[in-house]
Amino acid sequence: MNAIILSIGDELVLGQTLDTNSAWLSQQLAGIGCDVAAHRTVADDRAAIAEAIREEAARCDVLLISGGLGPTDDDLTREALADVLGQPLTLRSEWVDELQRFFTRLGRTMPERNKVQAMLPEQADLIWNNNGTAPGIRVKWSGVRREEDSSASQASRLNPQPCMIFAVPGVPKEMKPMFADAIKPWLSDRSGGAVILQKTLHTFGVGESTIAERLGELMKRGRNPSVGTTVSHGVVSLRVNARFESPARAHEEMEQTVKACRTVLGDLIYGEDGDSLSQRVAELLTASGKTVATAESCTGGLLAGSLTDLAGSSRFFRYGWVVYSDEAKHKLLDVSQATLAAHGTVSEQVVRELADHARRVAGADYAVAISGIAGPGGGSQQKPVGTVWFAMSYDGGTAAQRFLFSGDREMIRDRSVKMALTMLRYHLLGKRFPF
Amino acid sequence: MNAIILSIGDELVLGQTLDTNSAWLSQQLAGIGCDVAAHRTVADDRAAIAEAIREEAARCDVLLISGGLGPTDDDLTREALADVLGQPLTLRSEWVDELQRFFTRLGRTMPERNKVQAMLPEQADLIWNNNGTAPGIRVKWSGVRREEDSSASQASRLNPQPCMIFAVPGVPKEMKPMFADAIKPWLSDRSGGAVILQKTLHTFGVGESTIAERLGELMKRGRNPSVGTTVSHGVVSLRVNARFESPARAHEEMEQTVKACRTVLGDLIYGEDGDSLSQRVAELLTASGKTVATAESCTGGLLAGSLTDLAGSSRFFRYGWVVYSDEAKHKLLDVSQATLAAHGTVSEQVVRELADHARRVAGADYAVAISGIAGPGGGSQQKPVGTVWFAMSYDGGTAAQRFLFSGDREMIRDRSVKMALTMLRYHLLGKRFPF
Repeated sequence: MNAIILSIGDELVLGQTLDTNSAWLSQQLAGIGCDVAAHRTVADDRAAIAEAIREEAARCDVLLISGGLGPTDDDLTREALADVLGQPLTLRSEWVDELQRFFTRLGRTMPERNKVQAMLPEQADLIWNNNGTAPGIRVKWSGVRREEDSSASQASRLNPQPCMIFAVPGVPKEMKPMFADAIKPWLSDRSGGAVILQKTLHTFGVGESTIAERLGELMKRGRNPSVGTTVSHGVVSLRVNARFESPARAHEEMEQTVKACRTVLGDLIYGEDGDSLSQRVAELLTASGKTVATAESCTGGLLAGSLTDLAGSSRFFRYGWVVYSDEAKHKLLDVSQATLAAHGTVSEQVVRELADHARRVAGADYAVAISGIAGPGGGSQQKPVGTVWFAMSYDGGTAAQRFLFSGDREMIRDRSVKMALTMLRYHLLGKRFPF
Repeated sequence: MNAIILSIGDELVLGQTLDTNSAWLSQQLAGIGCDVAAHRTVADDRAAIAEAIREEAARCDVLLISGGLGPTDDDLTREALADVLGQPLTLRSEWVDELQRFFTRLGRTMPERNKVQAMLPEQADLIWNNNGTAPGIRVKWSGVRREEDSSASQASRLNPQPCMIFAVPGVPKEMKPMFADAIKPWLSDRSGGAVILQKTLHTFGVGESTIAERLGELMKRGRNPSVGTTVSHGVVSLRVNARFESPARAHEEMEQTVKACRTVLGDLIYGEDGDSLSQRVAELLTASGKTVATAESCTGGLLAGSLTDLAGSSRFFRYGWVVYSDEAKHKLLDVSQATLAAHGTVSEQVVRELADHARRVAGADYAVAISGIAGPGGGSQQKPVGTVWFAMSYDGGTAAQRFLFSGDREMIRDRSVKMALTMLRYHLLGKRFPF
């Protein structure tokens, strides 16, 4: 069973409101084995809505329409749907009664215009709305269904399978319970039990194409479970989707594919689904009972901010310094003026001294120091913008490493924080830092 | 001129990623008088992408495609576009050279698969990407354009006006500058007609309903320019849209409405459009030649991070302390153990001592201290989660104030940073802090 989601509203098309309904509905549909093939959004325009309904209903089993069911003149989903179906709108007295009760409860008189919300296409079923004045609509459309084929747009022929159209209010507080109570169970009963499981694995440190190269056949199109990659703020995530008739099979296949990805990528994977890098490092620090201090220049406190993201960070984080100026590096963390003069503030020597002093003063097990050129100014031939030195001081030594990050100031600072967390993570795992 | 936005990606269709690009692009297009008629999102499926391009290009002047330009096998926009155009993909040597330079700069070898990003439909123009490995694409499509009419889907005939198709990367950091630098100017030159001007005014400190109450008639529906509010991360923003045939009139009306909003809200408005609170504070510090230091407990470095968001912050920011533990507060900033014991770490006395000591050690004009309970644990009857004490030390005194923020840990930390910046902003403006 496949579905298409159609959202109605000028505010969506104009970009004034973000369409969060479609994403939510997609997740819900995936959970009951219903493939979402596309989203579409059109303005409050009767002809445009009707055209979109006609086109999309012709290529799916379920069309979910959200929005355009309000009481005002720019709410046109009812009319457009009636146009497509070739059915008149008829007044549903049970909903007029409910509207009367609704307004009486609020101590108000029902505005005459709300009555339009009780008008539904003649053969449509009314879906009760417990949270607002717009009922939902369920109606079967038996127009021309187009067979799917690879050349798509050309081949059209009658498909005996009709499309089931649902229309729900656009207000999330009304739409979500209506979907959960009335539509999801209805679809679940008819979806044939196929299950789509989703899992996301997160990596940081290497690019998307390198990840793809290592994954090789695992990312082959058509594979089930499928493996795809997305990038967000430097984090390359693997999205694994498993689709099988049997839930047990789906779980088993998902587990095998995740295992295969983990075999290939090893410790590059730092977490799953909602996990964050800072959370993972916090867990490792907490589990080992170790403490950490920070000395930051270009990241200006963001590493400390990241380490204290989650409750309980007082167990491992106590001291942090933001030594943005040379003066602060010298005065607060005793970096020698000779070192600063000889090597410059962005140098291996400076981050080593920062990390060593920070660890000593804080009495911590680890101290991480960062000094770099976040730009946009301040770069040179030898030290271009994006050059960042990291040092980690620990019981047994001090490791230092230089990276060159691309992107703007925000990206360079963000990647620097993540790379520092990654250095710490590898050390806490007892693994060689692979970069 | 009308436009349609087509987004490509499994993660969008599955609801795993929210489509923020389409909303952003719509706003940009509105700003240059280009009406957006619809959004559409399809999966990483070559036939589905091609079909969507064919259908949508047939009903608009400009088709903007985002996503599907990455280097992996599931990036299929290039291929689908070539299918629709009936043109082969050809290798652009200038982009292969650029890719080589890009990877060389990062000290890495270009993965072979990245080369596919230099393949463009034969007659397409390459749009340079300064922020990533995927160039954009601009190409004219002269297929069958469908005349718009009310019965829409039936009537098809040749329309001499071709559709201009743009394809841009889905990564916002690459898409946005590419649109602004290369696509927006191109469209501006050709748009003509009605102008929609948009301006956003940002406030922090009071809620949306209070702002709406103060604005009163300015927010009336149907008003042109219209004024609406949105809330994001505690910032209540006013969106003003002016739509007029004449650009001069649009500018004049916009100016009057903005002035009216400013009269009502005064210094609550800290900036316009892309302005951030930290940027505004940075400007005030820079203009006055003053310096600032920070001492943070619950915000863990995020205030310092925010003050160093922008280049040039070394002019006013030199020292910051993250004193997450009582020990750190005492050892680094000399808060007396008697004070800590008598009043607790989240108290007026502690933030006052922190701010005073931080200012003295840093030799700064201002020092801001924050200590609070970000939760989820650690609250009590007297000091519930969300209790945050602020102090600002300056030449002439120390101001301290307590706030109670609602929300989760992330929200409480974020609001704390913004409130500290707001305290500083009012002081720098020479105005009484109104909260």
